[in-house]
Amino acid sequence: MKGLIGVLGGMGPAATVDLFNKFVTYTAAHNDQEHIPLIISSIPDIPDRTEALMHHGKSPLPVMQDYLKRLEDAGAECIVIPCNTAHYWFSELKNACHVDMLSIVETTMKEVIASGKKKVGLLATNATLYMGLYQKSIEELNFECIRPDEKNQIKVMESIYALKSGDNQLAEFLMKEQAEQLFDQGAEIIVLGCTEVPVILADEVRNNPNKYIDSTGSLVRAGIKWYENRVGKNNLLI
Amino acid sequence: MKGLIGVLGGMGPAATVDLFNKFVTYTAAHNDQEHIPLIISSIPDIPDRTEALMHHGKSPLPVMQDYLKRLEDAGAECIVIPCNTAHYWFSELKNACHVDMLSIVETTMKEVIASGKKKVGLLATNATLYMGLYQKSIEELNFECIRPDEKNQIKVMESIYALKSGDNQLAEFLMKEQAEQLFDQGAEIIVLGCTEVPVILADEVRNNPNKYIDSTGSLVRAGIKWYENRVGKNNLLI
Repeated sequence: MKGLIGVLGGMGPAATVDLFNKFVTYTAAHNDQEHIPLIISSIPDIPDRTEALMHHGKSPLPVMQDYLKRLEDAGAECIVIPCNTAHYWFSELKNACHVDMLSIVETTMKEVIASGKKKVGLLATNATLYMGLYQKSIEELNFECIRPDEKNQIKVMESIYALKSGDNQLAEFLMKEQAEQLFDQGAEIIVLGCTEVPVILADEVRNNPNKYIDSTGSLVRAGIKWYENRVGKNNLLI
Repeated sequence: MKGLIGVLGGMGPAATVDLFNKFVTYTAAHNDQEHIPLIISSIPDIPDRTEALMHHGKSPLPVMQDYLKRLEDAGAECIVIPCNTAHYWFSELKNACHVDMLSIVETTMKEVIASGKKKVGLLATNATLYMGLYQKSIEELNFECIRPDEKNQIKVMESIYALKSGDNQLAEFLMKEQAEQLFDQGAEIIVLGCTEVPVILADEVRNNPNKYIDSTGSLVRAGIKWYENRVGKNNLLI
């Protein structure tokens, strides 16, 4: 099917479910056939991205390149990766890729700019923070980037790994506290710069959509727009 | 990754999201890497199954065979199809397939038998009913199969197509009424024999898990067990 989007997922699986669900619910479709065609790799043996970057763990790049190739071979014409930390290797992946690729950092930053807010909170993994994936873009715009201090960032990571291990309740308890602290520190909006975070804070984001920029949501909206351009239809619902 | 399960989905996309979500939440995993590896085709241009069987519409078989082959080429070692109606073509698909395949009708019927209930309600598409996909198995066991009458079955289909078009609220309203009617007619348990139905009745099933047999859930549990046998691990949570 023309316009097939390949999802290089499994980092982690719950975040990939969230992306898939948003592709379905954000698309204006009257029947099955009008939905966006997707081929999703949720093969989770990709080495942990934070471990690789922060603790000299095994690089996830070769395995990601393998699974990317499988998506291309299956007919994908555009690749999206529902994992912010993995975007550290975006250039290498793009070099190995023969079709379009959308960067979650770029799609998220476009929505930050569109929000008109300039004091931007950031909830992300240690590795995403350490590599400055978002801070660089935020500060280049002369916006303020507000992030948890070292002690609180430990709780952000605890929350993310709690979700990955299936303890959604603990994950939500820990992450809500961190979001509140960023607002207390003056954040006007918070970037959910790890794809586990919109899963963890799903209720909070549903109740306060204007307080958060959901990186997964931004990637999905960009994916639907890519599809519209590819096939010449109008499919984006929200 | 050893034990890769291929999902021939997109029939419809919301039901495929539901299957994927159940694979993630029913697996006992402590981290990303312990989850079940999946490659999911949600390419929804497969011709409507009910239209094909009831109104001489275009056969979905050639397109399903194409997408099945893509999953095999991507390394899938077992295929699951989260669409009951599509199982009308299960034998043809199995003949064309070079790896294992699990039948949703078989996995569901095993859970019906295990429930110990003998008055079995059935919510499914017109085509699934017309082909007798479930009735045959239920009646062979000398169990009673209780299904909506002609007028009510129209509402079941309205509900299913409402979900496919994104109107979840209308879908739930219509389907809850049909479930209640089957219980009023003596059903001790209801088979949700269309993968849209557990999505539509998600709240109802969560609150009354012992009143329903969720065909999608049964397929996921069988998939996790298949994976356990393949790799020699114990992964099933519920």
